[in-house]
Amino acid sequence: MNLPGQGPDQQSNPSVAAAAGRSLDPHVQRYAARTAGMTASEIRALFAVASRPEVVSLAGGMPYLAALPMDSLATDVAELIATEGQQALQYGSAQGIPQLREQICEVMALEGISAHPDDVVVTVGSQSALDMVTRIFCDPGDVVLAEAPSYVGALGTFTAYQAEVVHVEIDDNGLIPSALSAALDAVRASGRRVKFLYTIPNFHNPGGVTLSAERRPEILRICAEHDVLVIEDNPYGLLGFDGQTYPALRASEPDNVVYLGSFSKTFAPGLRVGWALAPHAVREKLVLAAESATLCPPTITQAVVSRYLAAHDWKGQIKVYQQAYRERRDAMLTALEQHLPAGCTWTRPDGGFYVWLTVPEGLDTKAMLPRAVTQRVAYVPGTAFYGDGFGSRQMRLSFCYPTPERIREGVRRLATVLEGELELLRTFGTVTTRQLSGPQSPSPDTA
Amino acid sequence: MNLPGQGPDQQSNPSVAAAAGRSLDPHVQRYAARTAGMTASEIRALFAVASRPEVVSLAGGMPYLAALPMDSLATDVAELIATEGQQALQYGSAQGIPQLREQICEVMALEGISAHPDDVVVTVGSQSALDMVTRIFCDPGDVVLAEAPSYVGALGTFTAYQAEVVHVEIDDNGLIPSALSAALDAVRASGRRVKFLYTIPNFHNPGGVTLSAERRPEILRICAEHDVLVIEDNPYGLLGFDGQTYPALRASEPDNVVYLGSFSKTFAPGLRVGWALAPHAVREKLVLAAESATLCPPTITQAVVSRYLAAHDWKGQIKVYQQAYRERRDAMLTALEQHLPAGCTWTRPDGGFYVWLTVPEGLDTKAMLPRAVTQRVAYVPGTAFYGDGFGSRQMRLSFCYPTPERIREGVRRLATVLEGELELLRTFGTVTTRQLSGPQSPSPDTA
Repeated sequence: MNLPGQGPDQQSNPSVAAAAGRSLDPHVQRYAARTAGMTASEIRALFAVASRPEVVSLAGGMPYLAALPMDSLATDVAELIATEGQQALQYGSAQGIPQLREQICEVMALEGISAHPDDVVVTVGSQSALDMVTRIFCDPGDVVLAEAPSYVGALGTFTAYQAEVVHVEIDDNGLIPSALSAALDAVRASGRRVKFLYTIPNFHNPGGVTLSAERRPEILRICAEHDVLVIEDNPYGLLGFDGQTYPALRASEPDNVVYLGSFSKTFAPGLRVGWALAPHAVREKLVLAAESATLCPPTITQAVVSRYLAAHDWKGQIKVYQQAYRERRDAMLTALEQHLPAGCTWTRPDGGFYVWLTVPEGLDTKAMLPRAVTQRVAYVPGTAFYGDGFGSRQMRLSFCYPTPERIREGVRRLATVLEGELELLRTFGTVTTRQLSGPQSPSPDTA
Repeated sequence: MNLPGQGPDQQSNPSVAAAAGRSLDPHVQRYAARTAGMTASEIRALFAVASRPEVVSLAGGMPYLAALPMDSLATDVAELIATEGQQALQYGSAQGIPQLREQICEVMALEGISAHPDDVVVTVGSQSALDMVTRIFCDPGDVVLAEAPSYVGALGTFTAYQAEVVHVEIDDNGLIPSALSAALDAVRASGRRVKFLYTIPNFHNPGGVTLSAERRPEILRICAEHDVLVIEDNPYGLLGFDGQTYPALRASEPDNVVYLGSFSKTFAPGLRVGWALAPHAVREKLVLAAESATLCPPTITQAVVSRYLAAHDWKGQIKVYQQAYRERRDAMLTALEQHLPAGCTWTRPDGGFYVWLTVPEGLDTKAMLPRAVTQRVAYVPGTAFYGDGFGSRQMRLSFCYPTPERIREGVRRLATVLEGELELLRTFGTVTTRQLSGPQSPSPDTA
């Protein structure tokens, strides 16, 4: 069974309003060609409304930071500044603090990766690693393969470098090897060049699925045969709800995989500390690219993470997160079973933050969003996770941030909205009274 | 009198060693075209040696952080995490914390700027602002005008986007208006397009000069007439040694100037908090570009800066910095007068971090650097600050970080090195026994 949402759905029209707005910009003739692809999401205004406390937001990917020991962190950081402030507040190297890079290797060892700190580059969140990888590999028109659906922030980065995204089908066991082969062949036949496969193997954002152990060597073999690099994005790998971890793709293929990691989900995102582990020659290019982008990542946030890893029971903290998210996942799945109308289907994640929901035919999740927000529940429409307009019958539901009680209330409200839409559909044959459109750019709201 | 160093000097040859190293990279066929311009500096290895404690480094642009009240900062940050940790460690908006953007407007008001917080974008240091500006404006082959010499980190960013840098002469009063007009005409005649003028009007890095008040309207008028945007990079503007500030270019021309600011020099660089103030439409593009680059700047570092501005005497701290840097500047200028051989000339900065030194004809500052490091003194060769190989008779000397005593010792050592080079020149007619080459990429060592 393929994961729903990858068939061709209704294509959004370019936004007339946005185009008109751009023509008022006196600088419009000055922009680079790539800037044409940077347009604001029309759903952004809705998310401003959705952030009001009365709205249950199942949209955002914000971690549950109430689980962190803030007092103890405060003491630690104060000691760091008082004793090492002159280093921690100074410029650092573009590659990142050596001690932190060693500790990152210990973190990655949990997923079977054997790596040298020299091959680690600390970045401003893994988003910046993704930006650097795209910068050094992608010329305009190059093709990037990505799961269907894929992470909205990655799609935004690929677009910013004028790369073209070709989606590859996934199912409950993750990326489908035969679909990957077919996509590679099709792109080659079209005369274009695939620069890399971008994949989120574990607890996929937004799909909620995990690449099975059996498929992992197959995916690597196909990419090697086609001489295509693999970008393995793994922010959620340690957030398996039963404590299970999967061997990283990088673990068995060090020369053809660039691995991206992050402390945003296992510790805290406001620090913006992520990393890339890359083959040595690629690592050199990433450092040069990072230098021109930021000179160096913030020293203080790296020092905070390094001290946290050294002084705190960070594995215990990950278990606390796992338990919190499992409870929330359970609350969401149970509520979906109880409340959602017939014809809805969804994934059942073993980890991570997200459920991928498909609504009955005839409904449009983007068109429906304003009515959902009016009924005080928010989600991210599925089209945000495709570069090609697919996903209008899908939505991403996040269970990471709201309490279980709020999740249940949010799903109840969502069910009411869906019932209303279906009622309109039965009565009038359509519910698409207003078509919202325009690409969604990544933002923390939707990350 | 023109600032020395802008005439054609010996051009470096492409590095054979670096090219050979790249051919061993199995990924070499995969990189984007822009990546060809990203090559590591051969002087990097020297700077690793130069960071040893026995070497007096007049190379780095590291601020003098011993002047900061670390205990008080530690207490503040601890309180921030204990009371607001759940917000300060969470994702934020791509544009930056609203309160900080308001405070940034207050900082800019010191230089005559009247701005709305909506038009401020907080960035990961002003380097990231520069990266975003270049991203949204520069197609490959577009021309960027920059002072001769210019900031090495900016040149690296322009190269990363395949923009071409055309240098414009400066003198003791900064950018020369007639040279700017001539450069604009020449580029237009060549069929290329100038996307913006990148300028550091105050206490120039590396030139040490300041754009005179008389020239400011003239520079703006010329750019407006040629329909060329101005990027005003102003990290040192509040570090005038007599407390003097100059009216920002942005103050009188809000619609055609993008202003870049930074807390790296007035507070601390390890936080990586900078900003861009841009015309409204440009600001929108900058935020979209920043989202795809990092999702959002680190929340915690923004919150630290915001709290610092609210709770500390930040203007008093800037005075402390001014006094410290003035004392160091005096130490350097006096030592240069006392020790340097005849034929050397240098600028006399009224603020900032840098002196620009020109050595007698026949000497080559890059070729000389290994011998200087052997004699335990380091500087940045002038060629780093040009995109076109000029600057071989120049070097940048930083007085920001070492104590006055160390500065005096460093200049004494430098004088010894120069005397030795001149002795060789008199004896053999040349001292260029070894030509180091290859573009210098930006790094915190040289920033």
